Amino acid sequence: MKVNKPSLARGTRDFGPEKMAKRNYIFETIKAVYKKFGFEPLETPAIENLSVLMGKYGEEGDQLLFKILNSGNFSEKITENDLKEGYKSLTLKIAEKGLKYDLTVPFARFVAMNRGELVFPFKRYQIQPVWRADRPQKGRYREFYQCDADVVGTNSLLCEAEILAMMTEVYQAFGFNYQIKINNRKILTGITQVIGANGKEADFAVAIDKLDKIGKEAVLAELATKGFDELALQKSAPIFDFEGSLNQKLAFLNTFLAESEIGLKGVEELKEVFGWANSYDHNSLTNIELDITLARGLSYYTGCIFEVKALDVQIGSITGGGRYDDLTEAFGLPNMSGVGISFGVDCIYDVLEELNLFPSAATEKVKVILAQFDEESGLQCMSILKALRKAGIKAEMYPEVKKLKNQIEYADCKSVEYFLMAGSEEFKQNAFTLKNLTNGEQQKLTLEEIITKLK
Amino acid sequence: MKVNKPSLARGTRDFGPEKMAKRNYIFETIKAVYKKFGFEPLETPAIENLSVLMGKYGEEGDQLLFKILNSGNFSEKITENDLKEGYKSLTLKIAEKGLKYDLTVPFARFVAMNRGELVFPFKRYQIQPVWRADRPQKGRYREFYQCDADVVGTNSLLCEAEILAMMTEVYQAFGFNYQIKINNRKILTGITQVIGANGKEADFAVAIDKLDKIGKEAVLAELATKGFDELALQKSAPIFDFEGSLNQKLAFLNTFLAESEIGLKGVEELKEVFGWANSYDHNSLTNIELDITLARGLSYYTGCIFEVKALDVQIGSITGGGRYDDLTEAFGLPNMSGVGISFGVDCIYDVLEELNLFPSAATEKVKVILAQFDEESGLQCMSILKALRKAGIKAEMYPEVKKLKNQIEYADCKSVEYFLMAGSEEFKQNAFTLKNLTNGEQQKLTLEEIITKLK
Repeated sequence: MKVNKPSLARGTRDFGPEKMAKRNYIFETIKAVYKKFGFEPLETPAIENLSVLMGKYGEEGDQLLFKILNSGNFSEKITENDLKEGYKSLTLKIAEKGLKYDLTVPFARFVAMNRGELVFPFKRYQIQPVWRADRPQKGRYREFYQCDADVVGTNSLLCEAEILAMMTEVYQAFGFNYQIKINNRKILTGITQVIGANGKEADFAVAIDKLDKIGKEAVLAELATKGFDELALQKSAPIFDFEGSLNQKLAFLNTFLAESEIGLKGVEELKEVFGWANSYDHNSLTNIELDITLARGLSYYTGCIFEVKALDVQIGSITGGGRYDDLTEAFGLPNMSGVGISFGVDCIYDVLEELNLFPSAATEKVKVILAQFDEESGLQCMSILKALRKAGIKAEMYPEVKKLKNQIEYADCKSVEYFLMAGSEEFKQNAFTLKNLTNGEQQKLTLEEIITKLK
Repeated sequence: MKVNKPSLARGTRDFGPEKMAKRNYIFETIKAVYKKFGFEPLETPAIENLSVLMGKYGEEGDQLLFKILNSGNFSEKITENDLKEGYKSLTLKIAEKGLKYDLTVPFARFVAMNRGELVFPFKRYQIQPVWRADRPQKGRYREFYQCDADVVGTNSLLCEAEILAMMTEVYQAFGFNYQIKINNRKILTGITQVIGANGKEADFAVAIDKLDKIGKEAVLAELATKGFDELALQKSAPIFDFEGSLNQKLAFLNTFLAESEIGLKGVEELKEVFGWANSYDHNSLTNIELDITLARGLSYYTGCIFEVKALDVQIGSITGGGRYDDLTEAFGLPNMSGVGISFGVDCIYDVLEELNLFPSAATEKVKVILAQFDEESGLQCMSILKALRKAGIKAEMYPEVKKLKNQIEYADCKSVEYFLMAGSEEFKQNAFTLKNLTNGEQQKLTLEEIITKLK
């Protein structure tokens, strides 16, 4: 048999038991909040038709899609001329399917395809892997999970407040210091209007999105290269420099954007969202900051936008989201407004790991391992094993008759808490030796006592 | 914007909230048993290097692998000559990665790559999708979940008994009539030896595997075409016809296989497995049948093999598994024996659906929806919403001020049990109207009473 030296595909990962337990803790925490807020689960396939995916993520996104080779004799229709035309047009001839790039576009496809049966507003959460043919680097993978919730089919700003409340509840559960930032895309549009850069909101958003990373001077320089003139840049200065309380910021924006209808609409929306959020949980507002320079880059957002930062760890945004106006338009269903959120599982994992905040994984582990002394007592032990499991206790018996030392080592390596010794002598006495592997203590107990203790 | 009529890729499915709840019930039931028996979770990537996957599933399997087109300019190295050589060799030049075909080969890769850190015997469960470029048909999909557990690194037959116990516990939880069948590949090998068809065990297994579908005569006819002579077929007759209790079957096999060392070893192994199983749970044996004609087709099994059938529904095997001797040999790690099991989630789903055995999905649903009458009382309702969720009650508020009729309709469509009306009047009285949407009953209650009732 030919022997391969096995390897993982670049940018992919295995998740062994310990990592799985930690990741499941993150997923379960988020999922519990999603459910409590009335979101229901959805899963879409990994494989989508390229006609669904292409053209939805810009030209760069199209390049980053993993494409699946058609089955069977895909090459019989390739001509020499196809080869000359280059790989982009050739791709479409030999690949009809691809791997999903995010959860949003497949969700939009699902909504469009099932519009007749769904009840709107439709609230779904979705926790699944996505794939991007990006250059792998630290913290960036080619296969990674997204953890999204969206509500579509309503313009109500209550939904924005609910998203703030979900972020708050999730991060309170994780237990580290965080800051939620909120802004509104209409305000950014308004800014471009009042500084005399009408229609340039996309360039403005992309540039200002880098403020944290490159600083004000570099952002202004980038804006200049994009055709923002000196006067526009001067006029925009207060945006970068204004500091104050929430109410001071809102008052400043009302003045600054006085000439922009859409800008003022953005301010009104923010006020309403803060109103809902304040009624829900006044205390949570201390962690929510209106950041006039928050932009969320080149995304399709049209209303409120959100971002969460971890305060005690050097890491980018760990959660983001916002409102969009035309989720399903590309699939023939216009006017489907919605608002969504996406937790960055890998970043959250790194933060919890760095701050040592993962709870003990004990509940996921086997609670007790039974020793196997010999064939006869081994068979007798089966009834103990059955009784323990019947009581809901995770238990196993060491599968071979080996030196006790080896068996205890096995239990130790698996971080199992208890080791149970039941040989022929113990069965005669109906008292078994339970060893606590954490502190080394041993006790002689009946089966009933053991069950009570371990339960 | 170009509008697509959206569609699913052939052989793939969306799982909306109701299907998700049902599928999760299946996954959680199986997962709970796996955990109770000491198995720990593992996840491997969807994408594997083709060098890991190719050659592991036979030539047909290689064809059924979904291959991923290399990123970037994959076609620049294709020559006209490559085109002439055909799609199979061309595939290897333009695709280095593929989607996993099952969970076993990636598991083997994981074990081989992590041999230094893993504690053996290593017990893992894995619940993930796999992909096969099969022709889609009723009940057969191109993307589907597998639900596996394996223990590797021990020959102990206790593991086989544990697998029988896990099958028993899972199917008792599902609550339909089932039959577990067990056999041993060594017995099949022994049979070919004593009937004078030495070395033909693979052909024998493939043919006899079809017994249920095509009947004895057709199996014998197939064996004849594979070079089994008249005498061999005559000698094999008792295998097809023998009926009796477990002990009678074992006695029959001991006589029938008296001249085959490996055959007798198979009988001994079965006896030991039944011994362990009997000690664990005597009653479960009534559902476990030794079936001398069980073969599990063209698989890599070398010891005990298992299969589960649902008795009241026309459907194939819903669970299968067995022992193999060389899981990781292809990855340079020989002598890694193991035994595994795989639950067929889609089949189990169909059985539970047909027998109407899915439990009510009520626990997954939102428990109560708050009406929104007007802006003022809406804001007041936020504190109710917060209090309900704090008590662990899944709750949401209708996001818009609409006619009550529309709001109740929404709750009805979502099969929500309770509808809570809290207008300005109710807030003054501190008593709110809770309507049970199942029976139409209404009650005036304080918030505390509501929480107690809904908890």
